[in-house]
Amino acid sequence: MTRLRVRFAETDQMAVAHHGAYAAWLEVARVEWLREHGYAYTELEAQGVSLAVSALTVRYRSAARFDDELRVEPRLAAVGSRGCRFTYEIRRDADDALIARAETTHVAVDRRGRAVRIPDDWHAFLERQVEREHA
Amino acid sequence: MTRLRVRFAETDQMAVAHHGAYAAWLEVARVEWLREHGYAYTELEAQGVSLAVSALTVRYRSAARFDDELRVEPRLAAVGSRGCRFTYEIRRDADDALIARAETTHVAVDRRGRAVRIPDDWHAFLERQVEREHA
Amino acid sequence: MTRLRVRFAETDQMAVAHHGAYAAWLEVARVEWLREHGYAYTELEAQGVSLAVSALTVRYRSAARFDDELRVEPRLAAVGSRGCRFTYEIRRDADDALIARAETTHVAVDRRGRAVRIPDDWHAFLERQVEREHA
Amino acid sequence: MTRLRVRFAETDQMAVAHHGAYAAWLEVARVEWLREHGYAYTELEAQGVSLAVSALTVRYRSAARFDDELRVEPRLAAVGSRGCRFTYEIRRDADDALIARAETTHVAVDRRGRAVRIPDDWHAFLERQVEREHA
Repeated sequence: MTRLRVRFAETDQMAVAHHGAYAAWLEVARVEWLREHGYAYTELEAQGVSLAVSALTVRYRSAARFDDELRVEPRLAAVGSRGCRFTYEIRRDADDALIARAETTHVAVDRRGRAVRIPDDWHAFLERQVEREHA
Repeated sequence: MTRLRVRFAETDQMAVAHHGAYAAWLEVARVEWLREHGYAYTELEAQGVSLAVSALTVRYRSAARFDDELRVEPRLAAVGSRGCRFTYEIRRDADDALIARAETTHVAVDRRGRAVRIPDDWHAFLERQVEREHA
Repeated sequence: MTRLRVRFAETDQMAVAHHGAYAAWLEVARVEWLREHGYAYTELEAQGVSLAVSALTVRYRSAARFDDELRVEPRLAAVGSRGCRFTYEIRRDADDALIARAETTHVAVDRRGRAVRIPDDWHAFLERQVEREHA
Repeated sequence: MTRLRVRFAETDQMAVAHHGAYAAWLEVARVEWLREHGYAYTELEAQGVSLAVSALTVRYRSAARFDDELRVEPRLAAVGSRGCRFTYEIRRDADDALIARAETTHVAVDRRGRAVRIPDDWHAFLERQVEREHA
């Protein structure tokens, strides 16, 4: 689970966090989720493999405002040999209000952007996580 | 239809346009689409009404790269008394490659963020557009 | 002092943090600096006063990379009745490398963007900070 | 000279273009300025050379607002064997109001970020431009 504060730069003239800012928050939360489990995304990239985003869905439920402290909670929903899918809940810390639900789908790609298999150790780790989530 | 070039600032270390940049492109295309039809989004806002984004989906099909000229084509898919839904295709101009398909759902809100009805003239205009698209 | 990690979304195709991302980091550090001293920027804004940025200078010294943990250290350099000036050092936490030095100049403005005086309690607080820095 | 419109995503809760958005505008204008003169920045990068930003200064003079059409006019102020410096004026097209003056300093770097000489043909082109500006 990642805590982050809405930056002033992320607000728009409706005085709420711009809907486009959420993609970066989900990304930060994925990277932190991996780190919490002992897997540094930078190490996957050092092996020449990235988890490119192939689909993004965000359902905005309540506006987030400047300086709001948010919790972004990712959950690994599925993993295959070549990709995976995360779901997320974003809540405001102060009142636990649901800010958004989201989903990202990922494909493993090499440095030229070609689809590849997820390295074995990462795949095994991700499978264990999916099992835990569903247990 | 809006033409835009991928900015250097919009690339990431995979040397492609970051997936989070697309939300702003769709928004630019919506605003231009309205202007092309004689409706300035700034005038709707001057009436105290905004079309807040309540859902966003992007399906990334092919990477866009720095300096690629893209065409973003919005299509008004549906309109109701309090909201509307757009779908989009993003294509690279040079080779017509499909970069992404996307969808945004909107709710009309006042300056305090409360759901309101779309003003009559705007609603009539949007309904005509949906009919044309489906004709 | 604020700690933040370079987000993937903040990198560019040179595989470093894009130079345009730094402005938001300085802003985050100012807001945190105020909070540490007991002054919430949201409260100043609730009084109808903002500290708009009238000038920004960043001198980039060493590239910051994805996932680098950075320390952003603001220092209040000067304050007047209608504005103030901050200087900053950004360092990579792992090796203390200097990433950038920066400076922002601010003018107090009301909700319509007109220059106003900094509220008395804020001005007194800022003056005390300048004195401490120079002591 | 580059024309661009302030994007909704670039506004902040002060209902003006966020000061951090300007860096990307200057960058867009440099790339277009090079293209107008027959030099594609993508070709320089294909040779393995980038013009990294080593310093940025922006002096904000008047707020830019959502949907404002801006002109960004770069001017090559100086060039050396390993770098160059641009100055800029940003004006609102509708009323010619000065929005900002800016300056960027650049160093030529290779793919590993090491300082290199600007390739001869590019250097000759840049020198001719500086002479023209000063003529």
